[in-house]
Amino acid sequence: MSRVYNFSAGPAVLPEEVLREAADEMLDYKGTGMSVMEMSHRSKAYDEIIKDAEKDIRDLMNIPDNYKVLFLQGGASQQFAAVPMNLMKNKKAAYIITGQWAKKAYQEAQIFGEAVAVASSADKTFSYIPDCSDLDIPEDADYVYICENNTIYGTKFWQLPNTKGKDLVADVSSCFLSEPVDVTKYGVIYGGVQKNVGPAGVVISIIREDLIRDDVLPGTPTMLKWKTQADNDSLYNTPPCYGIYICGKVFKWIKKMGGLEAMKAHNEKKAKILYDYLDESKLFKGTVEKKDRSLMNVPFITGNEELDAKFVKESKAAGLENLKGQNCGRYESFHL
Amino acid sequence: MSRVYNFSAGPAVLPEEVLREAADEMLDYKGTGMSVMEMSHRSKAYDEIIKDAEKDIRDLMNIPDNYKVLFLQGGASQQFAAVPMNLMKNKKAAYIITGQWAKKAYQEAQIFGEAVAVASSADKTFSYIPDCSDLDIPEDADYVYICENNTIYGTKFWQLPNTKGKDLVADVSSCFLSEPVDVTKYGVIYGGVQKNVGPAGVVISIIREDLIRDDVLPGTPTMLKWKTQADNDSLYNTPPCYGIYICGKVFKWIKKMGGLEAMKAHNEKKAKILYDYLDESKLFKGTVEKKDRSLMNVPFITGNEELDAKFVKESKAAGLENLKGQNCGRYESFHL
Repeated sequence: MSRVYNFSAGPAVLPEEVLREAADEMLDYKGTGMSVMEMSHRSKAYDEIIKDAEKDIRDLMNIPDNYKVLFLQGGASQQFAAVPMNLMKNKKAAYIITGQWAKKAYQEAQIFGEAVAVASSADKTFSYIPDCSDLDIPEDADYVYICENNTIYGTKFWQLPNTKGKDLVADVSSCFLSEPVDVTKYGVIYGGVQKNVGPAGVVISIIREDLIRDDVLPGTPTMLKWKTQADNDSLYNTPPCYGIYICGKVFKWIKKMGGLEAMKAHNEKKAKILYDYLDESKLFKGTVEKKDRSLMNVPFITGNEELDAKFVKESKAAGLENLKGQNCGRYESFHL
Repeated sequence: MSRVYNFSAGPAVLPEEVLREAADEMLDYKGTGMSVMEMSHRSKAYDEIIKDAEKDIRDLMNIPDNYKVLFLQGGASQQFAAVPMNLMKNKKAAYIITGQWAKKAYQEAQIFGEAVAVASSADKTFSYIPDCSDLDIPEDADYVYICENNTIYGTKFWQLPNTKGKDLVADVSSCFLSEPVDVTKYGVIYGGVQKNVGPAGVVISIIREDLIRDDVLPGTPTMLKWKTQADNDSLYNTPPCYGIYICGKVFKWIKKMGGLEAMKAHNEKKAKILYDYLDESKLFKGTVEKKDRSLMNVPFITGNEELDAKFVKESKAAGLENLKGQNCGRYESFHL
């Protein structure tokens, strides 16, 4: 068995230790005589798995008691609809457009009400984060929405926007658990886990309790109403049990490695090596304004498409997999 | 390692051979140097996995070319909303209520239009399937809905309802791949895979192409619109990759075992042993009308709650896990 260097932005590389444990437990999870895949989600053994996972992410992110942690399905793309369905009381919200995923969320919100683009970096191919210190946020906006780290374009909000008192909703899929976070600054933090945390098919949503309401938009499916899952501890129906189990193992691994402070130090160190190299290189250059550079995704180019293609091909031959970004033709990603 | 007899109705027991392969491939899938959990869903290796899975279920169920096979998320519970959102052009549909899941689907449909209960077996605790040969189906109903096998109550539609020309939509979660099926009799067949096919977190929906439309109900989330996934071969966003991979392995295992004819013979044999025993027993009795008995879920009772509890306890001590049904206090399930 030989493992490659896997730069895929998501699904992405997982700690080898986690995979080894999962393999070892595949036919018999801790003496239960069954795989976690075969286990009733109402069983005692599974109850411990999901409760442990919740406790560990609460510890890691220091999540206050007045926030619920929900394990959901459908990817961030499904939350693009769930966010307005659950929060758009006034049918208006402010969106900051910093890349493809923010744009998709903005477009989806338009199905349900008025989504106002209060800032955008589309003018320079999303290569920076706009100044969000004094935006024209509508008085009756129900929330302000960001994609905090932009996978494809390699930017990150190092300062959260001034929401002028509105609740902040952040898609953190590609910076999840990469550094300590002050949860109290957000109304909702959510992310698909497949970029930093676990296997595709699980979304974790951390929501301040007062935003979990019965008076959602008319026509909201029961499964998209956060209250359904909050009232049932994410067990309204069968959850993606195995994915949650793997996430739980990753949480324990991160704790053992020193928690989010240690992750931050590790990510900074790793990113610095690459950014320093790019800044010195005569061949390669980064595509992002320095102040807005992501620690997780580092797009770079030569400026010559043929050379770019040659680099991707030769790096693959050297065992560096998935360096080419799927949507932008750049090389991206720099993970766990 | 010692495996138990696991009677959980879902998540349910999987073939040991499948689990062994998954464990073996956990750190390195076929020389790719990575786990399927870590693999880009746009990669060549994953493309083969999902295409193979689709091909194998098409072979097994003999699915005609004018039906799409979609791999979705959110469980059957989410399809309870997706079905009316995608199909309720006239805002009316006929539901046959034969248990808890049919009832939930019926209630969910009421969010979106008029769901008419055209038949029900609630009068006798869902212990039978109503006569559906001449129901009063509204002329403008968009479809007729059934839950084909009722997990909790142990009943099965051995004859499909006379829909009077309307399209039949069937939740087959708990009889999926248990016997050959004539797909052409349905407009939509769908099921959560966690009962018969694979790990929780994947729904497979088999839909006749003309029912996959752009003109869904207003307010339908992009992710719940079947056309979104049909146009993108279930890869509009990151699918539950690992779950689909395990389902694919189960499909290959079923093919190797002789396909759905062999599954049917196996299920009939296994169910006969238990039903014959119950019919002879002075202690236990089945709860379902003989003509409507499921081959997959076999509820039985002693008629005395204390004795029931004692049986569950002692059977657990003897290594028979999850015999007690979660919602009805009966013992249920009889799987793969």
